[in-house]
Amino acid sequence: MSFLDRIAECNLWNPDNFRWFVVDGCRVGRVRQALVPRLAEFGKVFGIEDDAVTLNPGLATFAARTSEMERVVKALVDDKIVEGWRGENYAVTRSFGEPPFLQIERAAIPHFGVRAFGVHLNGFVRSAGGIRMWIGRRAKDKHTYPDMLDNMVAGGQPIGISLRDNLIKECAEEANIPREIAARAVSVGAITYCMEAPDGLKPDVQFCYDLELPADFTPRNTDGEIAEFYLWPLEQVAEIVRDTREFKFNCNLVVIDFLVRHGVIPPDHPDYVAICQGLRR
Amino acid sequence: MSFLDRIAECNLWNPDNFRWFVVDGCRVGRVRQALVPRLAEFGKVFGIEDDAVTLNPGLATFAARTSEMERVVKALVDDKIVEGWRGENYAVTRSFGEPPFLQIERAAIPHFGVRAFGVHLNGFVRSAGGIRMWIGRRAKDKHTYPDMLDNMVAGGQPIGISLRDNLIKECAEEANIPREIAARAVSVGAITYCMEAPDGLKPDVQFCYDLELPADFTPRNTDGEIAEFYLWPLEQVAEIVRDTREFKFNCNLVVIDFLVRHGVIPPDHPDYVAICQGLRR
Repeated sequence: MSFLDRIAECNLWNPDNFRWFVVDGCRVGRVRQALVPRLAEFGKVFGIEDDAVTLNPGLATFAARTSEMERVVKALVDDKIVEGWRGENYAVTRSFGEPPFLQIERAAIPHFGVRAFGVHLNGFVRSAGGIRMWIGRRAKDKHTYPDMLDNMVAGGQPIGISLRDNLIKECAEEANIPREIAARAVSVGAITYCMEAPDGLKPDVQFCYDLELPADFTPRNTDGEIAEFYLWPLEQVAEIVRDTREFKFNCNLVVIDFLVRHGVIPPDHPDYVAICQGLRR
Repeated sequence: MSFLDRIAECNLWNPDNFRWFVVDGCRVGRVRQALVPRLAEFGKVFGIEDDAVTLNPGLATFAARTSEMERVVKALVDDKIVEGWRGENYAVTRSFGEPPFLQIERAAIPHFGVRAFGVHLNGFVRSAGGIRMWIGRRAKDKHTYPDMLDNMVAGGQPIGISLRDNLIKECAEEANIPREIAARAVSVGAITYCMEAPDGLKPDVQFCYDLELPADFTPRNTDGEIAEFYLWPLEQVAEIVRDTREFKFNCNLVVIDFLVRHGVIPPDHPDYVAICQGLRR
């Protein structure tokens, strides 16, 4: 297996399985063909075309679109189509920071193939022996990707909070990182991918941050989402990413990007250029 | 003007203006339509097809291809089609590090639209006031892009030398950086672009390095290629890149990548994702 395998696994999807999801004349997502008949049952809420599902243009405001879609999503929850209600709303936009067309419950986002945004933190410690990286293991009872390895801190980006505030909040909840340390995190780039999943399509963006931690800091989870933390030499983390699927799919990309930016994957690696390109598709 | 303008300027080209350049069954480059009639005059050296110029498959070895192409390139120099002879050979390959099909004089590389590789160094100094970056100004008598701003150290990648050795050599020649300091440079990623230029097509790869320099180090050019060095606050460098065309075209991308990786262009910048994607096309 190779780093490129991990990247390829995050970019598997078949456009034929989807129709555009159109809001206010913009293609903001994609709906799986199999979901279309159910959406058609909502009457005037959706217009159904050969290549698109269009939210009724009569719903002309953020509030109107949001309230009608909330009704739809709740029905899909009753159908057990949408599972794992989060009680967290995501913005529906074409590009981060643009005024959103509406907001949707997080668990429904992939069903409408809407681009989700997240913050991911590479927490690391430098020592004479090189860089070691803090890695989390997701709780066994987490609804999504239980028991898998994860970045030290990572979280989805809800509507109504800045990226940095969200990062600092997640740092506190997931790893008990004090605000004054978390505030030193440096934004280092965005990773993009598009993956078909059981619950729909994930054409997502990961905003990545590096945070060098003091050698005497030990993370402690406070929200029950991380079962355990490990401080592993970077070479060991690299091997796990390259040779296994122990990390949650998209966390692999965050680690690979870190390995590139810190010279661990060297530029004469045969896949170097393909890796750099593959992280931003 | 914007950072995206700089990226777009490095990615302007029209496929209709070119035919594939095929060696040993592989598309290794592109030849401008206008050059095709001249290549046809070399008789059996090239097969001319509607969409491709193919190097005679009878030239079955590195040595045979190299020697025949050397004859062609020398004729193109006599024609004043290939200008600015460098006396430096580049590998013709699909991917860096693969066994090359042949080698070609550097000045001829864009005429055959072959992917060129280069090393680019971000030399910077940290202080309480933030990061300052060393910037070079190219000599007025340099054949290519005279008098323009440049990365502290940058050089094309000739055949037969490793990336790191080339970087260390360029560090010595361009900025008099001692080997023990240059060796601390960290590889941080590759940038790719494809640009049509007067001399052909540049579908190139830039291998980027960061080097934090001691505050008391002052660069001094030793090979006559750089006229002057400046140590500028990163914000000033960012403004020049964003608002002017004072940098050599591809050096802008190296600086933009640095600004992203060091948090100077923040993730809530409206073009952030497009910038990250645009640097690796």
